[in-house]
Amino acid sequence: MDSPTMSDTVTKRPTLSSIISPEGSLEVLSQHEVNRLKRTSKTGLHDLLRRCSLAVLNSGMPTDDSLALLEAYKDFDIEVLQQDRGIRLKLTNAPAEAFVDGRMIRGIREHLSAVIRDIVYVYNEIQQHNRFDLATAEGTTNAVFHILRKAGTLKPSRDPSLVVCWGGHSISREEYEYTKDVGYQLGLRDLDICTGCGPGAMKGPMKGANLAHAKQRRSDSRYLGISEPGIIAAESPNPIVNELVVMPDIEKRLEAFVRLGHGIIVFPGGVGTAEEILYLLGILLHPENADMPYPLILTGPASSADYFNKIDEFLVYTLGEGIRRYYTIITGNPADVARNMRQGIDDITEFRRTHQDAFYYNWRLTVARDFQAPFEPSHAAMQSLKLHRQQPTHELAANLRRAFSGIVAGNVKEDGIRAIAAHGPFELSAEPALMQKLDALLTSFVAQGRMKLDGQPYTPCYVLK
Amino acid sequence: MDSPTMSDTVTKRPTLSSIISPEGSLEVLSQHEVNRLKRTSKTGLHDLLRRCSLAVLNSGMPTDDSLALLEAYKDFDIEVLQQDRGIRLKLTNAPAEAFVDGRMIRGIREHLSAVIRDIVYVYNEIQQHNRFDLATAEGTTNAVFHILRKAGTLKPSRDPSLVVCWGGHSISREEYEYTKDVGYQLGLRDLDICTGCGPGAMKGPMKGANLAHAKQRRSDSRYLGISEPGIIAAESPNPIVNELVVMPDIEKRLEAFVRLGHGIIVFPGGVGTAEEILYLLGILLHPENADMPYPLILTGPASSADYFNKIDEFLVYTLGEGIRRYYTIITGNPADVARNMRQGIDDITEFRRTHQDAFYYNWRLTVARDFQAPFEPSHAAMQSLKLHRQQPTHELAANLRRAFSGIVAGNVKEDGIRAIAAHGPFELSAEPALMQKLDALLTSFVAQGRMKLDGQPYTPCYVLK
Amino acid sequence: MDSPTMSDTVTKRPTLSSIISPEGSLEVLSQHEVNRLKRTSKTGLHDLLRRCSLAVLNSGMPTDDSLALLEAYKDFDIEVLQQDRGIRLKLTNAPAEAFVDGRMIRGIREHLSAVIRDIVYVYNEIQQHNRFDLATAEGTTNAVFHILRKAGTLKPSRDPSLVVCWGGHSISREEYEYTKDVGYQLGLRDLDICTGCGPGAMKGPMKGANLAHAKQRRSDSRYLGISEPGIIAAESPNPIVNELVVMPDIEKRLEAFVRLGHGIIVFPGGVGTAEEILYLLGILLHPENADMPYPLILTGPASSADYFNKIDEFLVYTLGEGIRRYYTIITGNPADVARNMRQGIDDITEFRRTHQDAFYYNWRLTVARDFQAPFEPSHAAMQSLKLHRQQPTHELAANLRRAFSGIVAGNVKEDGIRAIAAHGPFELSAEPALMQKLDALLTSFVAQGRMKLDGQPYTPCYVLK
Amino acid sequence: MDSPTMSDTVTKRPTLSSIISPEGSLEVLSQHEVNRLKRTSKTGLHDLLRRCSLAVLNSGMPTDDSLALLEAYKDFDIEVLQQDRGIRLKLTNAPAEAFVDGRMIRGIREHLSAVIRDIVYVYNEIQQHNRFDLATAEGTTNAVFHILRKAGTLKPSRDPSLVVCWGGHSISREEYEYTKDVGYQLGLRDLDICTGCGPGAMKGPMKGANLAHAKQRRSDSRYLGISEPGIIAAESPNPIVNELVVMPDIEKRLEAFVRLGHGIIVFPGGVGTAEEILYLLGILLHPENADMPYPLILTGPASSADYFNKIDEFLVYTLGEGIRRYYTIITGNPADVARNMRQGIDDITEFRRTHQDAFYYNWRLTVARDFQAPFEPSHAAMQSLKLHRQQPTHELAANLRRAFSGIVAGNVKEDGIRAIAAHGPFELSAEPALMQKLDALLTSFVAQGRMKLDGQPYTPCYVLK
Repeated sequence: MDSPTMSDTVTKRPTLSSIISPEGSLEVLSQHEVNRLKRTSKTGLHDLLRRCSLAVLNSGMPTDDSLALLEAYKDFDIEVLQQDRGIRLKLTNAPAEAFVDGRMIRGIREHLSAVIRDIVYVYNEIQQHNRFDLATAEGTTNAVFHILRKAGTLKPSRDPSLVVCWGGHSISREEYEYTKDVGYQLGLRDLDICTGCGPGAMKGPMKGANLAHAKQRRSDSRYLGISEPGIIAAESPNPIVNELVVMPDIEKRLEAFVRLGHGIIVFPGGVGTAEEILYLLGILLHPENADMPYPLILTGPASSADYFNKIDEFLVYTLGEGIRRYYTIITGNPADVARNMRQGIDDITEFRRTHQDAFYYNWRLTVARDFQAPFEPSHAAMQSLKLHRQQPTHELAANLRRAFSGIVAGNVKEDGIRAIAAHGPFELSAEPALMQKLDALLTSFVAQGRMKLDGQPYTPCYVLK
Repeated sequence: MDSPTMSDTVTKRPTLSSIISPEGSLEVLSQHEVNRLKRTSKTGLHDLLRRCSLAVLNSGMPTDDSLALLEAYKDFDIEVLQQDRGIRLKLTNAPAEAFVDGRMIRGIREHLSAVIRDIVYVYNEIQQHNRFDLATAEGTTNAVFHILRKAGTLKPSRDPSLVVCWGGHSISREEYEYTKDVGYQLGLRDLDICTGCGPGAMKGPMKGANLAHAKQRRSDSRYLGISEPGIIAAESPNPIVNELVVMPDIEKRLEAFVRLGHGIIVFPGGVGTAEEILYLLGILLHPENADMPYPLILTGPASSADYFNKIDEFLVYTLGEGIRRYYTIITGNPADVARNMRQGIDDITEFRRTHQDAFYYNWRLTVARDFQAPFEPSHAAMQSLKLHRQQPTHELAANLRRAFSGIVAGNVKEDGIRAIAAHGPFELSAEPALMQKLDALLTSFVAQGRMKLDGQPYTPCYVLK
Repeated sequence: MDSPTMSDTVTKRPTLSSIISPEGSLEVLSQHEVNRLKRTSKTGLHDLLRRCSLAVLNSGMPTDDSLALLEAYKDFDIEVLQQDRGIRLKLTNAPAEAFVDGRMIRGIREHLSAVIRDIVYVYNEIQQHNRFDLATAEGTTNAVFHILRKAGTLKPSRDPSLVVCWGGHSISREEYEYTKDVGYQLGLRDLDICTGCGPGAMKGPMKGANLAHAKQRRSDSRYLGISEPGIIAAESPNPIVNELVVMPDIEKRLEAFVRLGHGIIVFPGGVGTAEEILYLLGILLHPENADMPYPLILTGPASSADYFNKIDEFLVYTLGEGIRRYYTIITGNPADVARNMRQGIDDITEFRRTHQDAFYYNWRLTVARDFQAPFEPSHAAMQSLKLHRQQPTHELAANLRRAFSGIVAGNVKEDGIRAIAAHGPFELSAEPALMQKLDALLTSFVAQGRMKLDGQPYTPCYVLK
Repeated sequence: MDSPTMSDTVTKRPTLSSIISPEGSLEVLSQHEVNRLKRTSKTGLHDLLRRCSLAVLNSGMPTDDSLALLEAYKDFDIEVLQQDRGIRLKLTNAPAEAFVDGRMIRGIREHLSAVIRDIVYVYNEIQQHNRFDLATAEGTTNAVFHILRKAGTLKPSRDPSLVVCWGGHSISREEYEYTKDVGYQLGLRDLDICTGCGPGAMKGPMKGANLAHAKQRRSDSRYLGISEPGIIAAESPNPIVNELVVMPDIEKRLEAFVRLGHGIIVFPGGVGTAEEILYLLGILLHPENADMPYPLILTGPASSADYFNKIDEFLVYTLGEGIRRYYTIITGNPADVARNMRQGIDDITEFRRTHQDAFYYNWRLTVARDFQAPFEPSHAAMQSLKLHRQQPTHELAANLRRAFSGIVAGNVKEDGIRAIAAHGPFELSAEPALMQKLDALLTSFVAQGRMKLDGQPYTPCYVLK
């Protein structure tokens, strides 16, 4: 590693320039693959690489605002070099927080490698050569499988142990401590953690589990982070994450969660969390998934009971009373959450063994085309969403999920923020009673301060019509 | 592992009975060695084993009061069995906190194994066969070496990296968070942690370092705990400790710290911390150690500046202005502490290489006989301590250390507590000015609540005459 | 693993049926990939899989005759199943020699996995999707790179150490023992072995190196076998091979050898060996490779001196005196061979470091299109080869290489044997003097019994015109 | 490692001087322990260290004559140094065969470390401090246990798998190849090898097993060599041996074999082999061992059938027909030997599990005091042996064992050779018929050339009276 030089530029944040070795999962690249990542390449990959790398390097300093991040490190650049022992990464004006006394933190080096690996693979194999028919459910599921396999995420020798944790990255200290406690209890029971990266409920369970795994001397623990280019800047992976996958878009990221995870825990969050709950319920409600066990626990500290009551109420109103058999709400009892999840995963193990299903990828789960197609939250698309109960529950769930997805985009994603800035808030139309329930739910989120990371007053990016 | 059965006894705390496999460093035992540990053996080893095991099993529930612990688990017992794949430990009415859903936490299983290993070795090799002349400095240093070697603590292939952290186990939340931050910064710099086990400043640095080591993907990190039978109940090892050594007495434990450690950090604490500082300075002041580098940093959050000023003042008064070249005081800057320590240890590495000294055991350090002889803090012994400045500084340091040692015993050790209960507080005599300084220091500790874990009002176990 | 059942079929050789788990490099397969391997698939992959698997399973019983092998195990079949912990291989009427007391030898299980991995990858990625333009040198080199990368063969962290050993699989006992001695001396010097699989000079160096590596406690040694579907039956991999790659054709296999290897040793062999020497010299003679170091040693026991003299004479006659600077001939001195190779590889290491070239793949080497295009040894193609000295030496080398290649096909390959059976021997035309030299060389091979494994009189598959 | 310098002394064999790092099991030494090994120490340990080290370094060049070895390397010396990363070994004029291009073979470095470890431990713990009462069976068995434990030989986590192989080191090529084949078949069945070190039947099984373990990818295989100072020069350990233990005398070495091994195979050998058979049968015949399973197979190539017939005949004559139930004779069928042994060891595993006996040390086996006491083969002791059938069979077996032991000493051990040179051959007296049988047996050994390594005519070191 070359010795880094402190930058003398006038950017506000301290930066470093250095040449580093990648670590971990990045295998050797061909000369073609290196060339496509160059600044001079026409593929656009260099810009994607630069943005994702910056997000990863910024892991110590979470921000909701990816535009601000790019602005703060205007001079940042990354270049891939080929050398005797493989490739090197040349970083210019990188965030100084990624380094300790001039040496990059190894976890961050691994994340940089993962970013390059996934960008190269997705571009070369998924997008460039049309190997997979992404217009079909089957082709999409296959593409998700191949990306995950390439990332080394599918581990055939392991028993089911992967708990997906969802929830807000902007939560209270009390809620954050609770997510750590749940992670600790899961870790004591030999369970692994998968989250969407980022702070808050994405980080707490990993920190807790890491401590528990140390006490249990569990040396091959998994802290799996699944991100995508549009969200990675706002939810940059914590260095505890020891497997990072960057999926090409939000829908494939969600499909990765539900096909990899053996159970899901949802902590308090904001609209993104609601989106995730609706996504999962929409899938589980599909008639073909009727007999599929899938442990889903909604949990938070005792003080969050009201939050979950509101969600429970909204779900029962929109999707019917029967929806409750798909989830369990537990508040204020981390050990109980962990025991329930352990039991649920033992049941999954039994189910898969009986059906000779793979442990590492849930092929059997039907994910309807609705849930796979990228939803582009344009103003027109948001306006035309069908938000009424005169449709099958899993279709309504799909539409509600899209509505929430658009709101997340308007809040934290680069494109969404730009669109709102240009054209004003999204307009949503729904049947009046449902619209009222939705408004109440979103208002409660605002009231609970669940809309932004930095705690400033929230300006809604939507209006209900 | 047999399935454990919930105890139906009437003890106040929940217990479990189970048969477990030892883990880690406990090697196979001969039939003789197993027999000597039996309840029916005349060696007294079974009682020692029982007390130390209980301390280790109680790790989740720190207490200052070892008598209370024994009382709370009157029915607890441990038995060593010999079986086909080696030995098994049969536990009766053990603290339920050591288990998760009926399975003992693996870190605690390892600690149980370490306890047995050290009891067997110390008894058979050190005490029974008189191989070492413990009346001499050389014999004692050799015995310490052999105990540590047997425990696998001497690792010839590693570069110097072991930072000994001392400080109170009963500290404020702010101070505790600070010890975690320092541990985190040390861990980011590839340093390992050694403490005396227990909560507070003994645990914080390990938790912090564990997180940093996860981010740095450092998989062979050392969290070394050095205890002794008299203190283990009050300062039971946190399960993060992945190497535990039980030395036979407090003096050999201190010698183990200074011969193993490559640098020492002292956090705020109470009398025990003052004892440790005086022990170390007494050794470093010895004329034969004049040119030996030994990084020593006193540190705490900004708010603890006054605490260290008081100690600094006391040291300068008693040992002279020159004493300041032996330590650095840093407050409120964990990264600075870690950078200093990293540099100090790099200097040590260079020094040892130049002198062809072993990295893993500081043979060159002279530890005067004064510092090795066990000090039995009887009322008579305490009264006869020479606490005046008409003696060489390293001798005064030795006597001050003994005074503090006796006070620690009166506060938290079984024998000491009994002696105070029977005969009233210890009486100390000193030259008036020194006595005044000492009183002021101890009073400031009381004022800062640094005397007891549970925060109850402190009844001094000593009077100054 | 299911318990295997002894077959009661009437085949001459004992067989077993069993379901086994793959081992090693075979990663999880998608449902599509499994389907394409099925007997009912139209891809033809099942037949390829069946033939290659049979070759691998037959490793204990070398044969030159792949038709005979298929005949002997007519009822053999293999099926890929998907199960909870990944895939399983169902074998029907497999050669019993692959099993010990009903359990398949683990090395052979790994080879089966490698065969499937490479067939799936080559078909899906190289042949099916036209990602690589195999009509160009660049596209072909890139395809070779991707196949090797997929097989895990490119290891960026290792220093150069891979010695390619070529030579006959049908050699005398004395020559075989010599190849073991050379392998032993290479192994003592921390070098790894790469061969084309099979018995004789392909196996001896690995056996010798394996013993030396045991003595040197070298635990991550590489025994790399590179095969291709047309040759694998005749040269089935010895189970010592711990990395097996099945390249799609003989030219890509040769390119894999020269781009992976850091040095090459050629033992006595027959026509195949002569082909390999000419292939390599043809490449090294290319003007663009003028300054490329590439250690090449021709060696055998003292008794093989005449053999190498004949080859040396032929090379000097056809390619000029200057050709001698590309190789060193050493006879009867294994330690000297190993010392020379060790030195040569140290030079390579220095060269690559200076040029910042990758250690694991020799991108810099120019392999002319001539040497990449599969040569189909039809009667017409053989007859039209230009075998005269009125052309650049590297082009003559290419044509001589093709001539030898055709003769190998006529001797041991399925298609070649069939063609000879149908149309009589190949006819070769050359300039008279060269033809005489060639005839003399081939005659000396026949005289030395270097044409067939089983020692029966050799019927030439060619006539010189 | 310092660069070694070629010696310019006038010794006949090439030597090197070098400073090396120990490898493997040698842990850190205290300053006392290092001092005791110095040339200037009065303990005699330096001479013992020098002789054993020379034997280990000479592993490539087997010799029967330990005096000749010491003579050939008169100038050899070894010194233990203490340095920053632990100890170093300074070698002067060491046999050059232990090095490859100036670097010592790692297996040999490990053996040097093992030699020092065992000399230090046996001297300090067994001989110096009288911890064990070596005059009792119990104390001796305990001492054997402690030496083996210190050497890391007792591995509680492993299933029984250790096959002890006995037999001559001076055997024919055919017999040697057979021992390799048996080792190969044992290795295919996941069995480990333990021998007495040295060439011939001590080396063949390890070579064979090493190849089989490579094919089975068995990475933690054990090749355990058990030697003692009097025999190590004549039977220096092959570098394949990856665990070496130097027991203090021949009786403790034999006890180590029978308590560690899970089964025993005896190949053809000479008198030493007969001694070993009688030793084992004498123990198994002890009434207290009546129901102990202990697989014992006598085996060799088909051509050795006569050899085993002779032994069988002698055993039946001296110990009765019933003796045959203790052993199985198999000739010419390595796979059958391995299958039988595998089955026998599976039975042992079951037996130990049932009785909760340790897998790693056979405490239950009764070894009578007779078999533990060192037998000093003086002329007087040999003459007074009771060689008649008017005693219990296990006592006669003990006496026959001593007779053979004396003959081995006279053939290959330093003291024995000296005694014979000074006082002429040993005289043995026995009952006439038994003497005749014994003479016939020994004569058949001489006729078969089983008395000396170098094939020269054998001069008996005994006369029968």
